[in-house]
Amino acid sequence: MTAPTSDHPTLDTSNPPLRLRHHCGVVGVHSPSEDRIPEKLFYALFSLQHRGQESAGIAYRNQGRLVVYKDLGMVSTVLGRYLREKRSSTVGIGHVRYSTYGGNKIENVQPVLASCNKGDIAIAHNGNISNAGTIKDALVEEGSIFQSSSDTELMLHLLARSRAVGFFAALRETLARLEGAYSLAMIHDNALVAARDPLGFRPLYIGRNGSVTVVASETCALDMLRIGDYRAVAPGEMIIADESGVRSEQILPSSQKAHCVFELIYFARPDSSVFGKSVYAMRKRMGAALAEDDPVRGDIAVPVPDSGNTAALGYAEAAGIRIELGLTRNHYTGRSFILPTTAERELAVRMKLHPVRSVIKGRSVILVDDSLVRGTTAGILVKLVREAGATEVHLRLSSPELKWPCYFGIDIPTRGELISNTLSSKEIADHIGADSVRFLGVDRLRSAVGTADDFCFACFTGDYPIGVRDRDKE
Amino acid sequence: MTAPTSDHPTLDTSNPPLRLRHHCGVVGVHSPSEDRIPEKLFYALFSLQHRGQESAGIAYRNQGRLVVYKDLGMVSTVLGRYLREKRSSTVGIGHVRYSTYGGNKIENVQPVLASCNKGDIAIAHNGNISNAGTIKDALVEEGSIFQSSSDTELMLHLLARSRAVGFFAALRETLARLEGAYSLAMIHDNALVAARDPLGFRPLYIGRNGSVTVVASETCALDMLRIGDYRAVAPGEMIIADESGVRSEQILPSSQKAHCVFELIYFARPDSSVFGKSVYAMRKRMGAALAEDDPVRGDIAVPVPDSGNTAALGYAEAAGIRIELGLTRNHYTGRSFILPTTAERELAVRMKLHPVRSVIKGRSVILVDDSLVRGTTAGILVKLVREAGATEVHLRLSSPELKWPCYFGIDIPTRGELISNTLSSKEIADHIGADSVRFLGVDRLRSAVGTADDFCFACFTGDYPIGVRDRDKE
Amino acid sequence: MTAPTSDHPTLDTSNPPLRLRHHCGVVGVHSPSEDRIPEKLFYALFSLQHRGQESAGIAYRNQGRLVVYKDLGMVSTVLGRYLREKRSSTVGIGHVRYSTYGGNKIENVQPVLASCNKGDIAIAHNGNISNAGTIKDALVEEGSIFQSSSDTELMLHLLARSRAVGFFAALRETLARLEGAYSLAMIHDNALVAARDPLGFRPLYIGRNGSVTVVASETCALDMLRIGDYRAVAPGEMIIADESGVRSEQILPSSQKAHCVFELIYFARPDSSVFGKSVYAMRKRMGAALAEDDPVRGDIAVPVPDSGNTAALGYAEAAGIRIELGLTRNHYTGRSFILPTTAERELAVRMKLHPVRSVIKGRSVILVDDSLVRGTTAGILVKLVREAGATEVHLRLSSPELKWPCYFGIDIPTRGELISNTLSSKEIADHIGADSVRFLGVDRLRSAVGTADDFCFACFTGDYPIGVRDRDKE
Amino acid sequence: MTAPTSDHPTLDTSNPPLRLRHHCGVVGVHSPSEDRIPEKLFYALFSLQHRGQESAGIAYRNQGRLVVYKDLGMVSTVLGRYLREKRSSTVGIGHVRYSTYGGNKIENVQPVLASCNKGDIAIAHNGNISNAGTIKDALVEEGSIFQSSSDTELMLHLLARSRAVGFFAALRETLARLEGAYSLAMIHDNALVAARDPLGFRPLYIGRNGSVTVVASETCALDMLRIGDYRAVAPGEMIIADESGVRSEQILPSSQKAHCVFELIYFARPDSSVFGKSVYAMRKRMGAALAEDDPVRGDIAVPVPDSGNTAALGYAEAAGIRIELGLTRNHYTGRSFILPTTAERELAVRMKLHPVRSVIKGRSVILVDDSLVRGTTAGILVKLVREAGATEVHLRLSSPELKWPCYFGIDIPTRGELISNTLSSKEIADHIGADSVRFLGVDRLRSAVGTADDFCFACFTGDYPIGVRDRDKE
Repeated sequence: MTAPTSDHPTLDTSNPPLRLRHHCGVVGVHSPSEDRIPEKLFYALFSLQHRGQESAGIAYRNQGRLVVYKDLGMVSTVLGRYLREKRSSTVGIGHVRYSTYGGNKIENVQPVLASCNKGDIAIAHNGNISNAGTIKDALVEEGSIFQSSSDTELMLHLLARSRAVGFFAALRETLARLEGAYSLAMIHDNALVAARDPLGFRPLYIGRNGSVTVVASETCALDMLRIGDYRAVAPGEMIIADESGVRSEQILPSSQKAHCVFELIYFARPDSSVFGKSVYAMRKRMGAALAEDDPVRGDIAVPVPDSGNTAALGYAEAAGIRIELGLTRNHYTGRSFILPTTAERELAVRMKLHPVRSVIKGRSVILVDDSLVRGTTAGILVKLVREAGATEVHLRLSSPELKWPCYFGIDIPTRGELISNTLSSKEIADHIGADSVRFLGVDRLRSAVGTADDFCFACFTGDYPIGVRDRDKE
Repeated sequence: MTAPTSDHPTLDTSNPPLRLRHHCGVVGVHSPSEDRIPEKLFYALFSLQHRGQESAGIAYRNQGRLVVYKDLGMVSTVLGRYLREKRSSTVGIGHVRYSTYGGNKIENVQPVLASCNKGDIAIAHNGNISNAGTIKDALVEEGSIFQSSSDTELMLHLLARSRAVGFFAALRETLARLEGAYSLAMIHDNALVAARDPLGFRPLYIGRNGSVTVVASETCALDMLRIGDYRAVAPGEMIIADESGVRSEQILPSSQKAHCVFELIYFARPDSSVFGKSVYAMRKRMGAALAEDDPVRGDIAVPVPDSGNTAALGYAEAAGIRIELGLTRNHYTGRSFILPTTAERELAVRMKLHPVRSVIKGRSVILVDDSLVRGTTAGILVKLVREAGATEVHLRLSSPELKWPCYFGIDIPTRGELISNTLSSKEIADHIGADSVRFLGVDRLRSAVGTADDFCFACFTGDYPIGVRDRDKE
Repeated sequence: MTAPTSDHPTLDTSNPPLRLRHHCGVVGVHSPSEDRIPEKLFYALFSLQHRGQESAGIAYRNQGRLVVYKDLGMVSTVLGRYLREKRSSTVGIGHVRYSTYGGNKIENVQPVLASCNKGDIAIAHNGNISNAGTIKDALVEEGSIFQSSSDTELMLHLLARSRAVGFFAALRETLARLEGAYSLAMIHDNALVAARDPLGFRPLYIGRNGSVTVVASETCALDMLRIGDYRAVAPGEMIIADESGVRSEQILPSSQKAHCVFELIYFARPDSSVFGKSVYAMRKRMGAALAEDDPVRGDIAVPVPDSGNTAALGYAEAAGIRIELGLTRNHYTGRSFILPTTAERELAVRMKLHPVRSVIKGRSVILVDDSLVRGTTAGILVKLVREAGATEVHLRLSSPELKWPCYFGIDIPTRGELISNTLSSKEIADHIGADSVRFLGVDRLRSAVGTADDFCFACFTGDYPIGVRDRDKE
Repeated sequence: MTAPTSDHPTLDTSNPPLRLRHHCGVVGVHSPSEDRIPEKLFYALFSLQHRGQESAGIAYRNQGRLVVYKDLGMVSTVLGRYLREKRSSTVGIGHVRYSTYGGNKIENVQPVLASCNKGDIAIAHNGNISNAGTIKDALVEEGSIFQSSSDTELMLHLLARSRAVGFFAALRETLARLEGAYSLAMIHDNALVAARDPLGFRPLYIGRNGSVTVVASETCALDMLRIGDYRAVAPGEMIIADESGVRSEQILPSSQKAHCVFELIYFARPDSSVFGKSVYAMRKRMGAALAEDDPVRGDIAVPVPDSGNTAALGYAEAAGIRIELGLTRNHYTGRSFILPTTAERELAVRMKLHPVRSVIKGRSVILVDDSLVRGTTAGILVKLVREAGATEVHLRLSSPELKWPCYFGIDIPTRGELISNTLSSKEIADHIGADSVRFLGVDRLRSAVGTADDFCFACFTGDYPIGVRDRDKE
């Protein structure tokens, strides 16, 4: 059975993305007195834009009604109106989203709202339910209809079908049936409800400033709202913020944790903390670890901006060589014009990244990036750097070799498309024209991260923290 | 329980509409060989634009997938792209829609698609299910979730919940549970399915040209597609068009009929046939009936364009006076600029309708329109005509006094808002400044229509063809 | 020498228009106290939309500055913002425009503003300067630069180059050099200035309501602003409205007049007066004159809506036959979707005009329209009417045969394209499939109009009121 | 006399800009064989986007006609269509632009096209004519009209008014009358013509690849088009590229030079060369010079991204301290939502720049930026860095104190608005809350740049390279 498909123009799915992509970012705000919640949601989502650039949406309670506004597009485009049109509200949630390949459907844009026997509910979800297929099959069998392919609609069905009495009992029952990753922000009645899966795959923070309560995927959103006092929502924890205050409940046991290490490597913003760790500090340590026993000593370390910036700093310091911003990035590249076809991919990279000839010419360059997926962009970059006169180009990646798919919220291409499943580092170097290519070993990454047992490294190792029953259906 | 509400900008719901408004128009096309169905749906919906100007949408099967495209806006805006971007398809349906007051939500735009245990289904619906509230309460109780307030979503739930085996058995069961008005176009697998309620409230026609099968609310859509050979879908009839041909089945008994007489009075296009009758001919007969014993003999009959045009012709002929196009209409009035507030209503009318001074000056004018709802526009018009120099202004309406709400697909204001529930004809004349006001009597209307027992006159008489259980909920 | 050309997307110039088209409509408003001039200009231009649908613009003085806003598009689209964003102002002018073939350039959109030694000036122009080529050649020779191909820029150059002292002396000198048609609205300092060519080709009215002065191409714009007290600006007259009142000056002698008879036949709105005559009354007289000695007696007269409406009424009355609205017009046809290519012209007509089968079937139809240009649409219409079952179709035109180009503001195709230069009425009937075709004779038209010596009939007779020196350059 | 003013919505001029802004960037391409010039212009302008983000435009010869397309907006928005709609052409020019305060008028968008007695001409201009007022007064006196306030229209008038025979003679005469800064790209007939003022204020490069000739403001545009072989157009040099090849002529003597040092400090892209110098290398030298005798030794050097990046690198290396990317920049800040009012300026900065707490906390921070205009943003940034836990914040600017206006193409606020005209470094530090503020001394800047006598430092010293006659008019 296939899901209905919208013919609405999609933004950018003609080609598979060249980078790993996240599913989403979420935010929720509660204030006991009438406040401009949509405006706050705008600012928070704006700071989470890097977690999803294909759609944005908010839901909030306004004059007793549960209201939603969402569309394909960037936060500033979709939600900018709320800076002009102020709406009073005491509770709201928001969402930014990347789609899976080819699935940039308007139907899947979040938050999702529904009326059911547990009341009116709005849900914004970051993560991926790994047993969604099994649950959906059962629901369809029982007579549920699906108007999208989202996990969010699935949760709403479970909430409605639950025989438990009341929304919160039904929510506990629903979450207990779900496997996989979820960091949720919800509205029920006048309450903001947040919950996180027991393994804590995706980050979720909660902060307070006076009587205002905010939950968000990363601390940068809390900083944006000037919420200085925050902590992580614990794996398995549910939080309820309403007029009577903020309550917490450990609704699912959480003995083991499986934080996504890629949040630290690439997804989260460097000024954020996730999983209790400074992203910036972690990336510098990864860069340093990468330099530790590097047999090559280049003249300069050059980051691939902006993904390689912090790791390159760490590398340069540890290696004792100069860092140079030898590639500049044109940030005007927008989505407002049609992106080139595969054949014009090199042109697309040339529009975005430019070597600084005077820096690179005559130098042995250590090029630092976070990870290697297919190797396409890396090949073009090595070519650009060589054209600018580098005597040698050595590519260094601050993550191990990507080899396995993710069932918990990251778009990783199929195993066959991942270059590290086909070629060795040496062969990759030949393939992309570099003098050498080195990855950060898994053990070094574990050391750099620190509390490694709390993290999931499955995309590098294939060692998944939980069984993945619906794997074949993906 | 309230339904979720979108904050998407609405087009025109700041004020209640001054005219009666329809819910919808539907169309469906099936062709056994790959054909440009979306293009055909565009042309058919374009000719049904008068049945709904607030949203438009189509669903069609393309390369095995069920695809939908719909949005707020006019047909030419929302669907114009399909004239450029041709899509091959063998089956599709389309919909145009007015919203109920304040309910112009993107979520309610049709067609609606869903996946369920009966397969992937798309539905476009014209009408109103009068027992929707009762059914919805039961469904919610059983654990269904509602993402809109549309009857269409309700039907999809019933189809999915049905224990009957197969789509068609479930459809029979579903339709048997529905009370009220429905003219449906659906896609299931590769089949176009159409059905009409047993009382035949709303029109629905089916026509063929070679192997192409088309269903549509009015014959003007069939004319547009150059389908010369058509007939009405019978009340209670289901039609299935697929690769093996066209099949018909009387799935519900239809002893009594209740065609909406307002389709003849105002809704349908004058060049259409509905309920087997020429709309133009019927309107001329209504106009003539109105003139029959009119004690006033004016100098000229002037229609309120375009709603009063045909009746005015009939009136003038029967009364033996001249018809003059003494009011001109500016058709550039679009929805592209913000409509005036209530206070500026007079300005809005002045932008649209203009008296021809040289025609009106010094004359006793018989102003002919189809119906009177609140009397607001009529008052402004009478004023305009007087300003242009009319010696007398007599308003004639080619329908009886509107007094009762409609539960079968027409937006009629509350009883209190209907001027005929508060004022007599004499008082209305005083109120709007006319020298006299006369309505077409119900009996004369019945005679003019001919087969009056097959029609519903409930909005004039309060004599509903079926019990209306959910009435209080409306 | 060619003029610069914009690559901005044009709206609708892929095909030559099927109807004759006007160049423009103009309006000007002056109020001694701060008033919302842009809003008034909006309403006035909205009522002149029929005189130009391809661009719209206004210029007004706001806080001491001369400000312009103009763009391609309809009045409601381009200028609708002024209903929301109120601007105080005491003087402003406005313009709507059709382009010549292929010349729908943003550069030519009016009003045009310029600074020169006579001050800051804004001009809106309706008409066509027949000696523009000669003047332009001289100006270019002297060192003027041209950024558009508009007559308006030409006038600004003449004003600036004039050695006369002061704006008004320069304006007198400038107008004395111009040949052809112009109805002008201008802003200079805080004054509204209007002027009309000595032959009075195009209409121009002036009206007052209290201290507010308005000039406009047609009286319908004055009606819209509720200006009841108006008169025509005389040929050769200049009017100045400023804080000290309204002054008039006959700046050019006007012994002979040459009002465009096509304004009465087709261009002006039926509720307008132009050249002191009711357009509606004139059209009925033309229709009646057309019927006078018509050897054919049809069953019904059917207008081609809306251009043939009023003439058809006159025809039916004079012929003593019934009028029937046997063709309905779909007014939703917008410019919002791409217009069909020539090959799809028939489809375009079918989307717009629909025969009412029950009226036409079995009848001999007198089809009444205003004029015949190429005959393309007429051929399709005759076909539609025949398909609807007419026993005979007789086409009647309320104007004589179009044979000559216009140098005074109307887009008439080349002589070779005009069907009446190639075929006789009999041959046209054969060509378009009609049983007969008859035009209104020039003499009958002259009688119907009344003061025929004051009118220009050159497009029918080739007898131009002034020599046309630049004719070959056009 | 004031110039006409457009009421078209401006993008961002409600507030004076916080940074210095450039007037423009130009590009020109010639190819002897039919080539896709608009596409090349797109890519070149895209890489010059940093030189002007408020409007973009191109002019090119297509099928014998000179065609222009320009609008307010970014390159990707305005010109993105040319990636889809290919146009063959052999010659074209392009332009990006910032406006002066409040002057973001559609009329001033370039290139400007005009027809005159020297033919059809298109001009794109980067710079500012310092005697424009005097020339304009004379032209107006002689009867020229001005439809904009641009220097470009001025040049077109001079070309048309010139009594010299032929375009090139007139161009020589015209340029000889101009004082100030101009880097020009022009189209005349089928030739690309480029010229640069004799002092060489603004950069202009010419490069060739096979038979394709390209001129552009910066080398990054040539790199984008893969033109490896380039040189600066010499001050006073005119270049003509047409079907017969490329010719150069020194049309004006150039004994003295006055390159704008701010191009090196801030405007040009770091990967560009301008004035024969690597921008990146120059900025590192400025940063190093700034560190040389800095009495403060911070723990870390933190650049204000991106303007302070390269100088901070130079500073850190010279000071022997670590560089940390302690402020991250959110590049999603677009122009697509309404920018905050002055009162919300801090919020705007917070949306764009974010401190990395883990880096800054407990550290003495050397914050490096390029220049200080009003000090508003700097004050907010110092506050942000302190909030993130810095023990000390020392602001270092890689340019001297800005004190004088620029008459040669840079928007510098009035002297009164420049903070360095009012406050000493010590006072500025107090004002913005920094522990210290230091500027790069003029002498050190001269040393860092190298060939300092060829540069203009007037905005720091008031020592203008040429008299500025129209100064008072500005």
